[in-house]
Amino acid sequence: MFFASDNAGPVAPKVMERVIAANTDYAMPYGKDPIMDEVRSQIREQFEAPEAAVYLVATGTAANALALACYCQPWQTIFCSKVAHIEEDECNAPEFYAGAAKLTLVETDDKMTPDALRRAIVARAAGDVHTPQRGPVSITQVTERGGVHSLDELQALTAVAEEFDCPVHMDGARFANALVALGCTPAEMTWKSGVDVVSFGGTKNGCMGVEAVVFFDPKKAWEFELRRKRGAHLFSKHRFLSAQMAGYLADGAWLETAKQANANAAYLAEGLHKAGAEFLFEPAANMLFPRFPRAIHRKLHDAGARYYLWDGTLDGDDGELLAARMVCDWSISRAQIDLFLSHF
Amino acid sequence: MFFASDNAGPVAPKVMERVIAANTDYAMPYGKDPIMDEVRSQIREQFEAPEAAVYLVATGTAANALALACYCQPWQTIFCSKVAHIEEDECNAPEFYAGAAKLTLVETDDKMTPDALRRAIVARAAGDVHTPQRGPVSITQVTERGGVHSLDELQALTAVAEEFDCPVHMDGARFANALVALGCTPAEMTWKSGVDVVSFGGTKNGCMGVEAVVFFDPKKAWEFELRRKRGAHLFSKHRFLSAQMAGYLADGAWLETAKQANANAAYLAEGLHKAGAEFLFEPAANMLFPRFPRAIHRKLHDAGARYYLWDGTLDGDDGELLAARMVCDWSISRAQIDLFLSHF
Amino acid sequence: MFFASDNAGPVAPKVMERVIAANTDYAMPYGKDPIMDEVRSQIREQFEAPEAAVYLVATGTAANALALACYCQPWQTIFCSKVAHIEEDECNAPEFYAGAAKLTLVETDDKMTPDALRRAIVARAAGDVHTPQRGPVSITQVTERGGVHSLDELQALTAVAEEFDCPVHMDGARFANALVALGCTPAEMTWKSGVDVVSFGGTKNGCMGVEAVVFFDPKKAWEFELRRKRGAHLFSKHRFLSAQMAGYLADGAWLETAKQANANAAYLAEGLHKAGAEFLFEPAANMLFPRFPRAIHRKLHDAGARYYLWDGTLDGDDGELLAARMVCDWSISRAQIDLFLSHF
Amino acid sequence: MFFASDNAGPVAPKVMERVIAANTDYAMPYGKDPIMDEVRSQIREQFEAPEAAVYLVATGTAANALALACYCQPWQTIFCSKVAHIEEDECNAPEFYAGAAKLTLVETDDKMTPDALRRAIVARAAGDVHTPQRGPVSITQVTERGGVHSLDELQALTAVAEEFDCPVHMDGARFANALVALGCTPAEMTWKSGVDVVSFGGTKNGCMGVEAVVFFDPKKAWEFELRRKRGAHLFSKHRFLSAQMAGYLADGAWLETAKQANANAAYLAEGLHKAGAEFLFEPAANMLFPRFPRAIHRKLHDAGARYYLWDGTLDGDDGELLAARMVCDWSISRAQIDLFLSHF
Repeated sequence: MFFASDNAGPVAPKVMERVIAANTDYAMPYGKDPIMDEVRSQIREQFEAPEAAVYLVATGTAANALALACYCQPWQTIFCSKVAHIEEDECNAPEFYAGAAKLTLVETDDKMTPDALRRAIVARAAGDVHTPQRGPVSITQVTERGGVHSLDELQALTAVAEEFDCPVHMDGARFANALVALGCTPAEMTWKSGVDVVSFGGTKNGCMGVEAVVFFDPKKAWEFELRRKRGAHLFSKHRFLSAQMAGYLADGAWLETAKQANANAAYLAEGLHKAGAEFLFEPAANMLFPRFPRAIHRKLHDAGARYYLWDGTLDGDDGELLAARMVCDWSISRAQIDLFLSHF
Repeated sequence: MFFASDNAGPVAPKVMERVIAANTDYAMPYGKDPIMDEVRSQIREQFEAPEAAVYLVATGTAANALALACYCQPWQTIFCSKVAHIEEDECNAPEFYAGAAKLTLVETDDKMTPDALRRAIVARAAGDVHTPQRGPVSITQVTERGGVHSLDELQALTAVAEEFDCPVHMDGARFANALVALGCTPAEMTWKSGVDVVSFGGTKNGCMGVEAVVFFDPKKAWEFELRRKRGAHLFSKHRFLSAQMAGYLADGAWLETAKQANANAAYLAEGLHKAGAEFLFEPAANMLFPRFPRAIHRKLHDAGARYYLWDGTLDGDDGELLAARMVCDWSISRAQIDLFLSHF
Repeated sequence: MFFASDNAGPVAPKVMERVIAANTDYAMPYGKDPIMDEVRSQIREQFEAPEAAVYLVATGTAANALALACYCQPWQTIFCSKVAHIEEDECNAPEFYAGAAKLTLVETDDKMTPDALRRAIVARAAGDVHTPQRGPVSITQVTERGGVHSLDELQALTAVAEEFDCPVHMDGARFANALVALGCTPAEMTWKSGVDVVSFGGTKNGCMGVEAVVFFDPKKAWEFELRRKRGAHLFSKHRFLSAQMAGYLADGAWLETAKQANANAAYLAEGLHKAGAEFLFEPAANMLFPRFPRAIHRKLHDAGARYYLWDGTLDGDDGELLAARMVCDWSISRAQIDLFLSHF
Repeated sequence: MFFASDNAGPVAPKVMERVIAANTDYAMPYGKDPIMDEVRSQIREQFEAPEAAVYLVATGTAANALALACYCQPWQTIFCSKVAHIEEDECNAPEFYAGAAKLTLVETDDKMTPDALRRAIVARAAGDVHTPQRGPVSITQVTERGGVHSLDELQALTAVAEEFDCPVHMDGARFANALVALGCTPAEMTWKSGVDVVSFGGTKNGCMGVEAVVFFDPKKAWEFELRRKRGAHLFSKHRFLSAQMAGYLADGAWLETAKQANANAAYLAEGLHKAGAEFLFEPAANMLFPRFPRAIHRKLHDAGARYYLWDGTLDGDDGELLAARMVCDWSISRAQIDLFLSHF
């Protein structure tokens, strides 16, 4: 009953098979391996972006921080949700990589709204040397509260960004989960909606540790390569990153695992709903925030269920409602979910 | 005939087996996986350092830059060989991680000498606010020219460092190759010789992409953890780093691959010597700098041999002597070496 | 009728006299001039802090950024008011000097409250490597809205900081204005109230360009000296910084100018109040935010009055109320204030 | 008998007069004062550069570090003499401002040579992501050993820089001393010789604390303004920087003080030469490195002469030759020089 995160599960078979297959003979290091050529083609094709610059790193924080640094001068500010991963969970990595730039927080509890984004941008006066200068907007898709911006919502945000000449980054640590939730194409969710660069996650959806950074305009390519090396994120035996991503992208493997994860969450959400749980945020992908009585949390905890208590601890009145943060990995079995639900 | 580097070969079977075995069920992320406990114990035991703080990252540059940053204030200078990897091949990563600290180069073509180190340190006047302040000394073992400092040589260097209160870092990207060349223990080559922190390489010696940073005094542990996260080098599915290192360290696997690599180089060196080649630097581990006529380089190149020309190009007089940089991976077969030698 | 800021007025006579007097013969550079010895003694005496480390820089931003950097690791966060000068008006200088640390904003429109400070600190979970770590608290006295924390209010804030082991910085760009408003001693407003380091402003209160950084615990002294030099803020002809501060501190000159500035503001506030203006924030020192009809703003503007429109522009309905930000320099004459008021 | 440096003397009368004259009424802060307009015109005229972007800061280190940062990406390297001020005496400020870029040292004891510069540049391979990338060349004029590059020598250096697309910075802390030594125009010594940006010193030649940064191509103007503010080097009461520079530039005041300083040095050098001293470096401007017996150093020291011993201490054999570093300020009197020489 592991629902603590989707960063703790096993590697999907098709990904692992490709890694094992890559382990033969010598391959040019540092991203010059032939599998990387394959990955580049796959991503360009799937994103309908034949000019895109494509790079691999091993962590989501590296993908975000390096991508943002290419679009943010040290005297600028990145605009992001006040609950964004880059603000709360990356220990100042974005600031570090962007040369001590600032993050300006957009007021929101879940998805960013165009009005809130506009207020945040306007508050940083243009042309005044004292004010942090306006830099990129970073949108998280899936959000840290499990929300998924619709294409209309995305486009409304990027329209505001464009009005102020702010480039747009998408933190897509759970890109695939959002994509299958929306039922759109990768191009629609990114460059066709005004996104300039995306952190395209693999790790949380069945890989071992790989994320792609995709620039739809390749003019930042060489800068990214230098920033990646300077950040110590360029792998010598790079073929093992490439192989993960190649296996992930081949034959729609990545969409399959995302569909499984989302279906697992939907199944769990339905069960929770039937059992009387409420939801802090509307379930949209593979992350849930159900609220139910502490007594049930205690039972689940004693039975070995793993998830985060969101707004309290196990100590207190039995009947008090407590929220949980639960994330469904692609690999969670229905049996495990049923077992979880059996405690209600 | 791949002799370009030892960073382009396959993963050793025992390492890969352990990675595959790790791919089951859920494991706590971010270094809290049980395999990491195993790795910590292995390293503490093999280094006879029960208090050591042990961490894993995926690249040698990350290991070096993060380890040095823990011992270097931004207004200080790191002392290293003028041909050190941290100076020539890390695209300013050490400066980046150390908050814009400086590297001061010790005059040497291969191994660092105590006199040259002392001159470099003394030239940075103590107690003067204008001068970059004295920071850590970084020693590369195996050097970038294939040299191996003897224990006496190491201790002579660390004695100079200690005299000026400079902490000592060892860049051990090829730690195992040096160790088996010297026939000493890990403890003798590190803390018993005055080394404070070591980048303990795995990637070049049979791993997929893993390096340990070992602090013999654990007081820097928490700072390292924060620096690693801030640098985006903390893996969520960390068990796959742990598994590599666990497989590497178990049953002396790491010493076996290093012995193979060094033996391959010795065999190649002997063949080259018989064929009349001279050596720019005395062969000591698994890296060779033989010099032989351009005509032979041409033949080898045409036959598909891969290595670096050190001091010229294929264009020119047939008879002119050119040096090569050749590195023997653990996985190179004798047949390949024989094939290489057959062109002389 | 210049009320735009107190950073645009002339140098007070006693300060200028001392600068002129210093211009003779040779003086040791870089802070080793004898006038600096005098300044150090003056500050230690006036702050009742015989051990204090005292340094001079030329700008308030340098004082803040360097002082904070001494108490903030790059992976930490500074806690400050969401309208603090370090957040809004220093173009990421605090982040730059603190090695890419983050600023976490305390919700407040004027003075910081203990509850809001506590909420901000608690939101950064201790001991979690993903979260920006808790660093110093920076309190602005006088605030950017003209407020002055009472000693009780200050102590309530520093008590919260101490509870979480956060060091405390005071941005005292208008230190003297706050001091005379409270009628307390420098020691009471700083170390006796739990402040660890203060940016002690001179420029806005009659100097040419000098601010002191005063550490009540001198253990950060050497680090500050290195940071100041590295930041390019160490003056060779330092005696001209020393002379300003020496003239400022001698014979209570600094208290005289502050009293004048505050009295000017009180006189102006009284006149505005009589003329029917309301105040956005309660006047406490030398900064006012009066609100009055646009028609009067227009008249004042045409007559050459200089101040900032706070929440609108001159275009619009005559009768609409608009706020102004007005700052009274020590040097503003009553005649100028009367002239200003005559337009109501 | 103060010959320790030219950074410890008084402010020249014409400069001080202008500072005093500026102390009236209110002036727009942060470089928008009318005196700055005057300075901009003066510099553009004297440099025959009507498009130049002109800024003031208070220290030479700030001028150098900010100017270089505008031309150096964090993954690049600055090329400078191994005895450059930016390498030896700025406590890593250039690295700090350039985002952790590296300095690559050109082998030279005094003036940089084209061959040595070329070797340094070529050693940083272009197009290789591992190598620090080629950035700006910084030339010191007057050098730290008192040398002055002729126009031919300058142009030979900038030709090498241009060949590799490296922009050129001139550290002109003693710009005026070099200029009058060469007898050329400011344009000839800068943009006509291939210099892109110059740190134009004032402090060492009669100012209180002011240096101009002059960009001959104004495209870096806005970036410089942001970097200056972020570095905390933008003065609110900027008119007092402007006034220094305005007084310095008016009526050739700056050339007068430089001529005096150089003439003082020439007079001293002649006297020393007659007294049998040798020179470590050929005297060219206002800095001398004479060598004479220790017994005379002792006598001078006892008589209160101030200068640096270059290669030894006062302890030792009377007859041994020791070198001194002596700098002549514009303000040193002939009587003081004669007094100095009387000890030989």
